[in-house]
Amino acid sequence: MNKTNAGRFFEDYHVGQVIEHAVPRTLSGGERAMYHALYPARHSLHSSDDFARACGLHESPLDDLIAFHTVFGKTVPDISLNAVANLGYAEGRFLQSVYEGDTLSSRSEVIGVKQNSNGKTGVVWVRTTGQNQLGQDMLSYVRWVMVRKGNLDATAPQTVIPDLADSVLASDLVIPEGLDFTSYNFIHAGEPHRLADYEVGEKIDHVDGVTIEEAEHMLATRMWQNTAKVHFDATVREDGKRLMYGGHIISLARALSFNGLANAQMIVGLNSGAHANPCFAGDTVTAWSEVLDTTETNAPGVGAIRLRLVAQKAGADAFSLKGADNKYLPDVLLDLDYWALIPV
Amino acid sequence: MNKTNAGRFFEDYHVGQVIEHAVPRTLSGGERAMYHALYPARHSLHSSDDFARACGLHESPLDDLIAFHTVFGKTVPDISLNAVANLGYAEGRFLQSVYEGDTLSSRSEVIGVKQNSNGKTGVVWVRTTGQNQLGQDMLSYVRWVMVRKGNLDATAPQTVIPDLADSVLASDLVIPEGLDFTSYNFIHAGEPHRLADYEVGEKIDHVDGVTIEEAEHMLATRMWQNTAKVHFDATVREDGKRLMYGGHIISLARALSFNGLANAQMIVGLNSGAHANPCFAGDTVTAWSEVLDTTETNAPGVGAIRLRLVAQKAGADAFSLKGADNKYLPDVLLDLDYWALIPV
Amino acid sequence: MNKTNAGRFFEDYHVGQVIEHAVPRTLSGGERAMYHALYPARHSLHSSDDFARACGLHESPLDDLIAFHTVFGKTVPDISLNAVANLGYAEGRFLQSVYEGDTLSSRSEVIGVKQNSNGKTGVVWVRTTGQNQLGQDMLSYVRWVMVRKGNLDATAPQTVIPDLADSVLASDLVIPEGLDFTSYNFIHAGEPHRLADYEVGEKIDHVDGVTIEEAEHMLATRMWQNTAKVHFDATVREDGKRLMYGGHIISLARALSFNGLANAQMIVGLNSGAHANPCFAGDTVTAWSEVLDTTETNAPGVGAIRLRLVAQKAGADAFSLKGADNKYLPDVLLDLDYWALIPV
Repeated sequence: MNKTNAGRFFEDYHVGQVIEHAVPRTLSGGERAMYHALYPARHSLHSSDDFARACGLHESPLDDLIAFHTVFGKTVPDISLNAVANLGYAEGRFLQSVYEGDTLSSRSEVIGVKQNSNGKTGVVWVRTTGQNQLGQDMLSYVRWVMVRKGNLDATAPQTVIPDLADSVLASDLVIPEGLDFTSYNFIHAGEPHRLADYEVGEKIDHVDGVTIEEAEHMLATRMWQNTAKVHFDATVREDGKRLMYGGHIISLARALSFNGLANAQMIVGLNSGAHANPCFAGDTVTAWSEVLDTTETNAPGVGAIRLRLVAQKAGADAFSLKGADNKYLPDVLLDLDYWALIPV
Repeated sequence: MNKTNAGRFFEDYHVGQVIEHAVPRTLSGGERAMYHALYPARHSLHSSDDFARACGLHESPLDDLIAFHTVFGKTVPDISLNAVANLGYAEGRFLQSVYEGDTLSSRSEVIGVKQNSNGKTGVVWVRTTGQNQLGQDMLSYVRWVMVRKGNLDATAPQTVIPDLADSVLASDLVIPEGLDFTSYNFIHAGEPHRLADYEVGEKIDHVDGVTIEEAEHMLATRMWQNTAKVHFDATVREDGKRLMYGGHIISLARALSFNGLANAQMIVGLNSGAHANPCFAGDTVTAWSEVLDTTETNAPGVGAIRLRLVAQKAGADAFSLKGADNKYLPDVLLDLDYWALIPV
Repeated sequence: MNKTNAGRFFEDYHVGQVIEHAVPRTLSGGERAMYHALYPARHSLHSSDDFARACGLHESPLDDLIAFHTVFGKTVPDISLNAVANLGYAEGRFLQSVYEGDTLSSRSEVIGVKQNSNGKTGVVWVRTTGQNQLGQDMLSYVRWVMVRKGNLDATAPQTVIPDLADSVLASDLVIPEGLDFTSYNFIHAGEPHRLADYEVGEKIDHVDGVTIEEAEHMLATRMWQNTAKVHFDATVREDGKRLMYGGHIISLARALSFNGLANAQMIVGLNSGAHANPCFAGDTVTAWSEVLDTTETNAPGVGAIRLRLVAQKAGADAFSLKGADNKYLPDVLLDLDYWALIPV
């Protein structure tokens, strides 16, 4: 009996299938410190217990993207080990903050399949849910990937393409219980800008850049127990390069966006996301944001801001995105659409 | 008075000598997070408090190799600062799991000395014991090293070669109190294979590989407070390379072995070990295992599996070990023989 | 409205101005583990809860330089984002140890300004104070930097040069409450040398060297939430190099000084400091110390030792410092003058 995991192939997925992912993970102040060492993260709610308490929480929650990466990492051996491409995200909602000592596990349901016309690959849609040790759902999102067929003779399944929302409705965003921004300390947070100071359509160049080393993206990707070979093994690709985990760019860009969006404190929705081009060690990454929407919420003093966050390589034109052909420009790395909470 | 530590030379050791090593160390969730960032470690008992509780422990113990490296690191300034070679390990037993908040200290007794015929070096055998803050022994192992003489005129001591067991007897393995695998969650652990699924003589190629960066092995080796110059200082060796701490390869290979041995959860015995060839940054490491023995234990649902774990460089033939001359092949990095606990 | 922080320019500072720095930070065992991974730190009081308890503290305090870097990092966006040079430190006092769970914030008062004769830059002196979550001052020091003018037409302010002490008086050093070295365990600490074993004027070569990688200094500098571009972005300087945060060298040299000064346990005063030359990845750093003063204190068994700590590049002459012109030699990286506590 072969003992190692060869990963699933396209023909191994069917709509309605539920996959319980392995290796639950308890998080501590260690992951929090590593996160701050790996990314220039400065959002005060994720940096200071005192700041979090003044905002109605019992202590500082771990960065929302720590939760995302942990849940995502667990899915890799089951969902994307034989993936050709990570195609997109949708309907992401952060349902429960994660605190030191929480144990996260992860489960996915297949909600769509479509074999490609070449007969060699197919697209699989899954809805992944992260749970904490109390059995509470703390994160839910849809991801779709292109996966190789293992047996080219396998019959094509009936095509099911899920009907996905363009973005999470503001009314569906979950605000952490007790969150209250009425006594928000703008000095400690680092910037004076409230929700009302941002206009839909406004673009912000986050100014700073970070050059990435191999050791850094591998430390990060391993910490999330992501096992995709291509991130770690320089002998896998013909060019001898290690492809960076797309989530490393998400966290890096989000941290860089502090400069101009210091008060966009917590991520509560993930509307869509595309890893526009691969990133490799040695690349210097910068970021810009565009305000897509703003709204109030029921929580005292708490608004929500919908942002496009774009990571690009240093030296690209300001606010690069797509060319005349509607394709991403070669220096664009990430195009992410998310909701964050911000004082009104 | 010279204030710095020049390390001991061969003539400074005598049988019966006990050396109390310096700098006790308190471990926390920080070391655990760093361990997961440095190695692709996924064994669920060391990853999740919930999983550990379902196995009868009060929380997830730190990876057994964190305990090993911490205890080992303390011995370096006293045992191997002037070592020419780290020759072997034997009779290693893990006596007590290590948890966050524990403080480890380390002590060695010299149990053998033998001057080499060249008159310039000798072999020193020590039995090293790690203790926790309660004074409980938590780890014991024998290591032998080749050490330079400081004074070539020093008289050769009477040769004492300790009588070491080929392997730790299954009956001498210590099972953590309360450990119970009768409700073991194979889905969360990541693989379905029980002890009965492994046959003596079976070999498992662990498939995955990791390319190592200088920053990674130095972060690891420093974290264990290992002070051997050659790991950190590129000006020490003529070739300008930093020699990797052998323990870095042990942890890397053990973590890689998850893929095929996910249920070989805790290391309880270290029968022997050889660092077959040096490893340097830029090397890509893969691993394979051979099942050497299997046995039941008195703990409910808990068996033990004896494994040979071999690390080799990517590109070497599958299952590389020794040549016709009985010497390790040049691409073999590590040959480790250990006992782990596994559900029956 | 421009949302990003362009940093302050020389004309934006005036004597008496108080700046509350952003982003308070809660520290945990994670930062402690990272510190041990980044630097070869072995001082036992910062390594072991047990050792610390035997010295009268309730647990092991975080390394004093973790406190320094955390407080310093917060000042960067307000004080040194447009700095041309970090000129010096004075009157540094550590007032309260920092423990896991503490939240640090930081505040600076401008105590001096002097426009340079070129009209393009000026020197700004600030006294920075770090506070914990109880509102207690835990660190205070003076730093002065050369800052660019943003508007060259801005009127030069009246010159105010603060009157700074050459060194902190021994009688002004704050000894942590309860500290008692009468039962000090020299074996566990790693060296037998007491205060009386050190002579004023004695120089100690700390022997060991460390070659620094880009990933390491960036992980460290980000962990302190230091945002200066030049440390992270290889596209900022014409030579494509990332300038290392001077504090990385302070911590590295201090950790190296364990070998010869293992009992100089806690830093309580920072008399002066100069980053003599820039340091870049690939440099191998060694360190030496000179004993400048020794004194007893009121705490039982506790003395204080004043030390010059010099970091230099490997290969430089032993005890390199200044040339005949009284300028730092090109291989000298750091010249730091500090007080540490040591058993009498």
